[in-house]
Amino acid sequence: MNSKLKAIKDPPSKQELSNRIEKVRDLMKQQNLDYYVCYDPVNIYYLTNFAFYVHERPFIFVIPKEGLPKMIIPLLEKGHFEQRAKIDYEMAFYYEFPALSGENWYDIYHKIIDNDSKVGIESAMPMGIANKTPGKKVVTDIVEEARLIKTDYEIGRTIHACKVINKGHKVLLKMCRPKVLLFALYREVSNAMTSKIVQDIPNANFRVVDTMGIVWPPSISHDPHLIPHIFDEVEEGGPHVSIVQAQVDGYGVEIERTFFLGHIPEKAKKPFETMFQARAMAYDLLKPGTIMSEIDKKVRNFIKDNGYGDYILHRTGHGLGITGHEAPYLAEGYDRALEPGMIVSVEPGIYIPGVGGFRHSDTVLITEDGYMKLSKAPEELDDLIISI
Amino acid sequence: MNSKLKAIKDPPSKQELSNRIEKVRDLMKQQNLDYYVCYDPVNIYYLTNFAFYVHERPFIFVIPKEGLPKMIIPLLEKGHFEQRAKIDYEMAFYYEFPALSGENWYDIYHKIIDNDSKVGIESAMPMGIANKTPGKKVVTDIVEEARLIKTDYEIGRTIHACKVINKGHKVLLKMCRPKVLLFALYREVSNAMTSKIVQDIPNANFRVVDTMGIVWPPSISHDPHLIPHIFDEVEEGGPHVSIVQAQVDGYGVEIERTFFLGHIPEKAKKPFETMFQARAMAYDLLKPGTIMSEIDKKVRNFIKDNGYGDYILHRTGHGLGITGHEAPYLAEGYDRALEPGMIVSVEPGIYIPGVGGFRHSDTVLITEDGYMKLSKAPEELDDLIISI
Repeated sequence: MNSKLKAIKDPPSKQELSNRIEKVRDLMKQQNLDYYVCYDPVNIYYLTNFAFYVHERPFIFVIPKEGLPKMIIPLLEKGHFEQRAKIDYEMAFYYEFPALSGENWYDIYHKIIDNDSKVGIESAMPMGIANKTPGKKVVTDIVEEARLIKTDYEIGRTIHACKVINKGHKVLLKMCRPKVLLFALYREVSNAMTSKIVQDIPNANFRVVDTMGIVWPPSISHDPHLIPHIFDEVEEGGPHVSIVQAQVDGYGVEIERTFFLGHIPEKAKKPFETMFQARAMAYDLLKPGTIMSEIDKKVRNFIKDNGYGDYILHRTGHGLGITGHEAPYLAEGYDRALEPGMIVSVEPGIYIPGVGGFRHSDTVLITEDGYMKLSKAPEELDDLIISI
Repeated sequence: MNSKLKAIKDPPSKQELSNRIEKVRDLMKQQNLDYYVCYDPVNIYYLTNFAFYVHERPFIFVIPKEGLPKMIIPLLEKGHFEQRAKIDYEMAFYYEFPALSGENWYDIYHKIIDNDSKVGIESAMPMGIANKTPGKKVVTDIVEEARLIKTDYEIGRTIHACKVINKGHKVLLKMCRPKVLLFALYREVSNAMTSKIVQDIPNANFRVVDTMGIVWPPSISHDPHLIPHIFDEVEEGGPHVSIVQAQVDGYGVEIERTFFLGHIPEKAKKPFETMFQARAMAYDLLKPGTIMSEIDKKVRNFIKDNGYGDYILHRTGHGLGITGHEAPYLAEGYDRALEPGMIVSVEPGIYIPGVGGFRHSDTVLITEDGYMKLSKAPEELDDLIISI
């Protein structure tokens, strides 16, 4: 990892993508695979820079152990693929879905891979595609494995993406006052982030741009996956929990804060403090070599010891990259060690019905000797009791 | 089908959803299935009214041949499911993904379905889920089959959704003038539609709301799946091709037009006229009993006979429903008959590099004796040469 990390806004170079494909080929070699087949649009984007939406027409990316990768694609998407894909490739077209007998996608597919080959496929591959995939199939998530450790380029993109959400969160805290409609807040924060993206990356691919900024007011913050109604209002007091997320020209990041408007209710003080200490405990363990399940276990035990064991709803964190949610996981059951170049959220949470939710989340890079928070917003309670 | 069709904005009743589940159960019976398992969020939304985004935590909806359906769900989503699901159900929780041994989603899953059962699964089900699904598995797309014929309620929702895109398209044609930035146009049209959705359906579920309004200017309209750059500008002349789409609280619709600003170039006249006549030919065939591949074949032959056979990039149309793209297909290779209650797009297209793209699309209901266009915008050339 380069020690001087800087924000990057440019699209990936051919060399960057070629390195990613070589990483996949190294893993293919270890598993003696003749071909690896990607169907998941996320993996295809990672390897080619081509982002698309899957309807019923399949897009299939075939990596042979040697030679050019092959993209099987509907005719309609030829120009789109040529516009975005930044690798050397061969293309194979089919006309439509469905098509006349002999002219369907699987007819072409069978000409590319012979039936004696050993073929790796994703666990995300749909049954309908897998059943028509030629060769001896092995389910193995090689591209997810390659995506675990970020390149300097990916880290640079993530640093930039965090500047976007940092701005979004600033706008959110400024605008978030009692009686403000959640819908108005959502649009303002989302627009602020979109505007920054457009200014910073005029040629951004809007297929992989998304922005979201919203607040769970105290009446619902104990239930973090409810979808608030748009005419719900910001309330007085707290805990409010913000969620500001973005996919910035392909890179997914998040920042979340627990905050209070005007005053902090007495009953919210201890849970906030417990969450805050649990979070500090997670950060203390955040360095290469730590087993991720151990972090989750210690954090959970600490929360339990403080009497809030029944109010834990989720693990301590998850990975981020070209998606906002992916491996690795800071979770019991995930017994892998942290490595430099991983990017994870750190977000232990406590959710008490009648009191509210308590969670800070940041997008955090694992470095050679510890970590670096890439997202930024106030963290301390004093800075999060906002005068109204 | 009720002969007096009206726009509906209300969420589905319990009876509506119960009827859908019964439709699925009838199909299960025909195939002697003990269970049908849905993993596709679209199918789960169709049957429950619960919309969610899939990260790595599985949501699995199990329909037994008798008794209550069972939802396997991460603990974190309990409140969210209860808030939105409008059916009678049982829930089974797992804590997290991943989780400690014995507490993972598949541990619960194996308690619900026994290994001797005959279990129907979707062709969209990922390998990683299918491999852990208990029982004797059969890939069969029963819910997609049920979704083919719309209920009166679904038709009413689609009629309302079309009012939203009709408005969006009106705003687009009004604002679309040479030098206007595509990005500005996109925001204006999208905001107009979102505002209407919010006014009409104050409690809309924004997980299933999406709006998109954009124009392919003549320099790129020959390539319909390119993503325009946001700083591209509207141009003089034409053909411009608009795409206005929305998912309106769950219901997907589209309207598209070929139009000209100021004047129509001479070379665009014949392709427009050919597209226009091909479209009329498709509508003439649009009634219950017509084999869908026949429509596509006749339309394609007509376009070929006019000398544009090399410029056809896609089929004549596709279905719409709770998504904007689904079965049935007006396509060669799809040899099924039209039935009352199907909703399809009609959109034969011609794409000539150096000249541009020619396509109108509408969202159209198949009725007892023909069809009814649910989307509305100018269609005739005279109305689509707009003075600037």
